[in-house]
Amino acid sequence: MRVQGIDHIGVAVQSVDSALELYSGVMGLRVKKVEILEDRRLKVAFLEIGEISFELLEPLEGEEVVSKFLEKRGEGLHHVALLVDNLEECVKYLHAKGLRTLGTQPQKGAEGKRIMFLHPKDTHGVLLELVERMKGGETGEIHE
Amino acid sequence: MRVQGIDHIGVAVQSVDSALELYSGVMGLRVKKVEILEDRRLKVAFLEIGEISFELLEPLEGEEVVSKFLEKRGEGLHHVALLVDNLEECVKYLHAKGLRTLGTQPQKGAEGKRIMFLHPKDTHGVLLELVERMKGGETGEIHE
Repeated sequence: MRVQGIDHIGVAVQSVDSALELYSGVMGLRVKKVEILEDRRLKVAFLEIGEISFELLEPLEGEEVVSKFLEKRGEGLHHVALLVDNLEECVKYLHAKGLRTLGTQPQKGAEGKRIMFLHPKDTHGVLLELVERMKGGETGEIHE
Repeated sequence: MRVQGIDHIGVAVQSVDSALELYSGVMGLRVKKVEILEDRRLKVAFLEIGEISFELLEPLEGEEVVSKFLEKRGEGLHHVALLVDNLEECVKYLHAKGLRTLGTQPQKGAEGKRIMFLHPKDTHGVLLELVERMKGGETGEIHE
């Protein structure tokens, strides 16, 4: 597998709007996008930091993953997303090395990307998201 | 203040060597450097992911900050380091905005950088390290 770079860093927050007051208002980071991911019941905001994004994640009613994280740990760093060339090949390779994924099929992530998470128990506690960018800048169906 | 980019992502681990087996051995990330920070009682390894580094942090005997984190939360994402032009000006600006720093004076970080941490209670739970790179590629005294 070849990791091309870091796509974004996910931060769990109680309120995207409140976090934007700090990260955009005070610290001057540019807001690239704020969107609702209906499938995953999340409100997300992307802030630009050089080539990388901060992805602020606010759970909406009925959401369970980020909500649980917030209950257990409070706001803070949630995951790191690594850009890979080919998601399926990468997952196949990592499975062969004994790493587990959360779920068996790629999910639709923000910005039309295909994503899959590795089990943090197999990655020294770091929730790693593997991201394959859409080819040629096309966007996924979730934005249509 | 102007954030130039992300310098590195800090990951607390029990053992740098064990974490390198995964991150370098399996995932193929290049190891840039492994060093002992005597002042801070840490063994650190830097892994290259595009323009960013993963900084693996293993506490040595007598270390208290990362040790406490590991005891409380286990291994995982510890901090994100933001590159800034001028550390003092940036801290002065953030203090004026009501944000607290951990300590009052810049510390010596890895790779000869000057660093300062913001209080995670003021940054939505994210431990942010502000990093000022040494000018012209000079290295700090801690490596001499």
